Formats: sequence, structure tokens, C-alpha cells
Amino acid sequence: MDKVNLAQKLSMFDGLWLPKIVARLNDYDIQVVKIKGEFAWHVHEETDELFLVITGRLTIQMRDGNVELGAGELSVIPRGVEHCPRSDEGAEVMLIEPTGTVNTGNARGEMTAVKERI
Amino acid sequence: MDKVNLAQKLSMFDGLWLPKIVARLNDYDIQVVKIKGEFAWHVHEETDELFLVITGRLTIQMRDGNVELGAGELSVIPRGVEHCPRSDEGAEVMLIEPTGTVNTGNARGEMTAVKERI
Repeated sequence: MDKVNLAQKLSMFDGLWLPKIVARLNDYDIQVVKIKGEFAWHVHEETDELFLVITGRLTIQMRDGNVELGAGELSVIPRGVEHCPRSDEGAEVMLIEPTGTVNTGNARGEMTAVKERI
Repeated sequence: MDKVNLAQKLSMFDGLWLPKIVARLNDYDIQVVKIKGEFAWHVHEETDELFLVITGRLTIQMRDGNVELGAGELSVIPRGVEHCPRSDEGAEVMLIEPTGTVNTGNARGEMTAVKERI
């Protein structure tokens, strides 16, 4: 059985806002992503989304308030809630959502990523 | 939106092998558990199971070999694979599996737990 070392996986790539799949749990993708700056406002109508901060700090902006996460903190953004992740200092984050979920949700554009497995 | 600090949640209870639900992602429970010693051999026929070590070391024993996990390392045990978690020094672990999954799988007994939400 394989194991996944999150720090080792995060050391394998540089790109920002490009989630990489590191494991699969049933029909969910376990992903890691490096972020800095601001993402795009978007919504996932069909699924909740889990963010767990590994290093750094992540602000998940929502229309009615923000969540601020540090290392070892997680939040689940419910389906249908518009949000925009931001990290001024940069962060490394584990994401969990169903396989096939588009990173930019309803807001396809420049930041829409193809999720490679590493 | 709530956030969950994993260390803070783990500080709220003492019992071993008693998973606590800290968040929900669609129809999955995000859980934390403290472990020490050996659990029961069991299998989940219907679902994979994710283990992410927060502190300490976890050995997931399987019939054809073990996986050894330290902090920041995860493994997904596929459905149908018999396994038995063990930690000689103790560990704090995040578990993810569908809501309603029985911790002891097919091996109901003394270690079967009711999962409280904290």
C-alpha cells in the first residue's frame, strides 16, 4: 500500500493554484496545492469543498464574511456558497472534493486547471 | 463559516480508539482519533478509508505488509482490504470515511464506537 508524504509531494512542483492529486478516496480526489495572492470568485453548486492548511495562512473570502486558517486548521465550504481563496504570504493546502470537480467551479477561465496526479 | 483546529479538537477528549466527528464533507465524516496499542483486525467492504497522521506514528498492518505513517503522511486503505491499526508510542490521526461507517467494519465488538460530534 502506498503512503503519501504531503511535504514531499508539495516539493515536487512550483506552480501556484494548480492542484495536484496525491490519492483517491472512493470517488474523491485528495489534492495538494500551493497558493499565493488571490484566486477567482466561484461557486461549486454540486459539492462541498474541504480546505486543510499544511503551511502558511489561507483566507477564504465569502460574501458574508471570511474564514482565516493557519496550519492544522480546516474548513468545509458548503455547496452553493460563493468563495474566493486568498493568501498574502502564501500557503500549502490539502483540498478534498469529488473527482471531476473543476477548481474554478462556475467561473471557468484562466485559472481553470487540469489536475495532474503526482 | 466554522473552522476546525485539529489540535484544539484533539485536546477536548482523552479516550483511545474513539473517533470524534469534527466536520462533514457532503456525506463523509471528517474525524479525529487518539490511538495507542493495537486495534482490531477488520475490513470495510463498502468503502475506502483515509488515515492522516497529525502527531506520533501509526502502523497500518495488513495481511500482505504494513504501512508506517508519521506526521504529515496519509494512506488510503482500499475497500475490502483487511487491516489493523497499531501505534506503540501513540498517535493522533485524522480519519475520513462515509457517514455511518462502523469503525470496526465487519468485526463488531468491544471496540465498536459511537461517533460523537465535537
